[in-house]
Amino acid sequence: MRKQHTEPFLYMQIAARIEKQITDEVLRAGDKLPSVRMLCRELGHNMSTVTQAYYELESRSLIETRPRSGYYVCLPPKKRMDVPNTSKPASIQKPRHQDDLITRVHKDSTDPGITLLSLGVPDVSLLPIAKLNKALIHATRSLPGSGTAYDQVQGNEKLRREIAKWSFSWGASFNEDDLITTSGCMNAVSYCLQALTKPGDTIAIESPAYFGILQLTKSLGLNVLELPTNPITGIEIDTLKKALSSNNISACILVSNFNNPCGSSMPDEHKKEVVKLLQHFNVPLIEDDIYGDLYFGNNRPSTCKTYDESGLVLYCNSISKTLAPGYRVGWVAPGIFKEQVIRLKLNHSISSTTITSEVVADFLKNGRYENHLRKMRQTLYNNSMKYISAIASHFPEGTRVSQPLGGYFLWIELDGKINTLELYERAIKHKISIAPGKMFTLQDQFDNCLRLSFGLQWTDEIEKKIKILGTLIKAMI
Amino acid sequence: MRKQHTEPFLYMQIAARIEKQITDEVLRAGDKLPSVRMLCRELGHNMSTVTQAYYELESRSLIETRPRSGYYVCLPPKKRMDVPNTSKPASIQKPRHQDDLITRVHKDSTDPGITLLSLGVPDVSLLPIAKLNKALIHATRSLPGSGTAYDQVQGNEKLRREIAKWSFSWGASFNEDDLITTSGCMNAVSYCLQALTKPGDTIAIESPAYFGILQLTKSLGLNVLELPTNPITGIEIDTLKKALSSNNISACILVSNFNNPCGSSMPDEHKKEVVKLLQHFNVPLIEDDIYGDLYFGNNRPSTCKTYDESGLVLYCNSISKTLAPGYRVGWVAPGIFKEQVIRLKLNHSISSTTITSEVVADFLKNGRYENHLRKMRQTLYNNSMKYISAIASHFPEGTRVSQPLGGYFLWIELDGKINTLELYERAIKHKISIAPGKMFTLQDQFDNCLRLSFGLQWTDEIEKKIKILGTLIKAMI
Repeated sequence: MRKQHTEPFLYMQIAARIEKQITDEVLRAGDKLPSVRMLCRELGHNMSTVTQAYYELESRSLIETRPRSGYYVCLPPKKRMDVPNTSKPASIQKPRHQDDLITRVHKDSTDPGITLLSLGVPDVSLLPIAKLNKALIHATRSLPGSGTAYDQVQGNEKLRREIAKWSFSWGASFNEDDLITTSGCMNAVSYCLQALTKPGDTIAIESPAYFGILQLTKSLGLNVLELPTNPITGIEIDTLKKALSSNNISACILVSNFNNPCGSSMPDEHKKEVVKLLQHFNVPLIEDDIYGDLYFGNNRPSTCKTYDESGLVLYCNSISKTLAPGYRVGWVAPGIFKEQVIRLKLNHSISSTTITSEVVADFLKNGRYENHLRKMRQTLYNNSMKYISAIASHFPEGTRVSQPLGGYFLWIELDGKINTLELYERAIKHKISIAPGKMFTLQDQFDNCLRLSFGLQWTDEIEKKIKILGTLIKAMI
Repeated sequence: MRKQHTEPFLYMQIAARIEKQITDEVLRAGDKLPSVRMLCRELGHNMSTVTQAYYELESRSLIETRPRSGYYVCLPPKKRMDVPNTSKPASIQKPRHQDDLITRVHKDSTDPGITLLSLGVPDVSLLPIAKLNKALIHATRSLPGSGTAYDQVQGNEKLRREIAKWSFSWGASFNEDDLITTSGCMNAVSYCLQALTKPGDTIAIESPAYFGILQLTKSLGLNVLELPTNPITGIEIDTLKKALSSNNISACILVSNFNNPCGSSMPDEHKKEVVKLLQHFNVPLIEDDIYGDLYFGNNRPSTCKTYDESGLVLYCNSISKTLAPGYRVGWVAPGIFKEQVIRLKLNHSISSTTITSEVVADFLKNGRYENHLRKMRQTLYNNSMKYISAIASHFPEGTRVSQPLGGYFLWIELDGKINTLELYERAIKHKISIAPGKMFTLQDQFDNCLRLSFGLQWTDEIEKKIKILGTLIKAMI
């Protein structure tokens, strides 16, 4: 329609000018545009003209609206990279644990001068420190004995009640009695695995998988069946079905939302289907939803637990990625395995830290957690765009990158000739810490992959580091 | 010599008057006597006369001095009861776990009206709450990110350094790198057991033993060999030696000081001998020293770790019985098993709570912990005398009671006809919670035994409850 006019409409002129700024990289992916009101004032045009300009840009995927925040520049098409392929792990083979590599990465990460792109740690600037400290002082006043006393074995009752209320948003119908607090999410996963398995058992998991879980399986003497996983939709259901029919699987572990490391999020239909499938085979599912609250879209995604009617889903979460890793506050809704998990908690650690549980309960109760998360999601989303954009600019052509809809991580597939262990060694000399793909599997795969965290606040310094990484990679081809 | 005089010396008159007050129970076990100076003023006598009166009473074990505190009334001879006999557990038999009983006792203990004589929990009035809160606020200021960040996997470095310095008093020569922090002492024991054993292995332990450790062994699929234990000197070394020669023991667990529940403390010679024996058989020892700092005498007792040259002793401790159970701060010096224990901690819970570790480090560093302990030891010792004295008054004749030199617990052996499970049911109706002997074994023994904690501050109310217990017991004979 527009092409019929020789003189472009005013709104199109405005749109074209903004588009040029984007093309020229004056405006970059993740940058916020002026509000409609402000642009009207600046340009002296009326609201409807400016609004129409923004609609035009939005319809061409150059910018996007974010509710209660405004208009932002999208990733330009030339920077949109392919996502990595669905993984193809072999069936069970002799596992090759990467303990030394993982210890190395952890150790290097404590070097004070390091740029930490390897680990999923929230930047301290993202955390509501002053408010947490206030809540801490409040907790010393409200708790009997100022929090010196043992907590209930099952965990702080107020915290469990608030988590139950909070979880309603994604379709859970917990009550406080369904929940047990733990010392972070991995501690929850550990108790679940101990409740469900004995040494020699086999568990099924996505591939790639979080290295912490792989190490835990070794610690518990378990065999691991890594299953093909799509970087967008998560575990391949057909293969899971085959595995359940032909193997003796004791439990399945999934990071269903914003998977660590590959960024996949299972669509609702997949979640439903997996729950049905596991119920059919009577195999419990440990669902690690630690990134679920860090969604970039408008709504909190559902979980497998949402569709669990049999109580076979053991749902684990924590505030370690969103609020305060050092507080060690996590929880599990273990369904029909509740008594076993409570007993394991009692046996292995008696109770949780009283005072930090109370602080988190307060944060949830007063809406401070939701307020904080709203900002944190925006920042992480922006970070993700900045990181992807920089990778597109500086990494060699053919690089594949995941497109996570939330969470902390980018999963990157480089040219097949690149070994990311070698890249690690070269990067660490430049004080850059990355997570080589090998950390996320017990098999011979992902040699040319790496995980980058975008938890660190975006700065010119980070851009420099990503540019260095790109240069190192190019030199290795 | 004294009998040669027809007129008793003045000091003897004073001593006789005090003795009468003790006999008449005007002064009772644990009561503090006036200072020498004060008594001089009151009676108008000179210092040496009063001092000699006190010496006289002390030489007859009627009173005792406590350094930096003064003179106290001892337990009168008529109230000194026999200690329970050395236990005689059978060799390995089908274990009978008392999970339901233990859960029941834990559950009943949360009833707000209960008098908690069952569990080893410090009375909140014994804890330095205000100083802890001050240290907590200080920690939010001194820690990066106010303690929201992950701690090092091995644990807060300052805390480890302070523990290393602190442990010097009982002959340990740790440095900070030898220690790993944990979420309380049981969490430390859990990691040690996981590092040393696999399901199906057998461990050797004192009998009776802390129920938490027995439950942990079940959780880890271990067999338990309960060994004869003397309520004064601890595990019987000859039987331990036989067990080590003829059984395949993977590890030994001992509570070497102020044992829970039986109150035994291994003499130095026994500690040395056990360490030598275990070294000979190359069997590691998990030493749980959680009560070691709560000694009633003048000096901190040594530990088995003191005599460990091979690194086979894994030493566990915490501040849960002395400072703040709800802080969940414990530690382990795992000797040659350090790497395994760090890995287990990383795998199962990643790190400890940052802020409570820092508070405990501060308390140690500034000498506040030692100051606090000095008072707490006095109070617990006094409590123990009051409790024993009341038991002597109210329980039936023939009752045997342990004579702990520290810690929290009395181990009581009643008439063989009494079943303490039945006593539990009757006592709980009077809102008194006791720990039946059955909780402390997997075998058929200790039916007529119970453990009482003297952690609750002594009051007339407690005396009433002990009187009720005595009446219930008498009615059951």
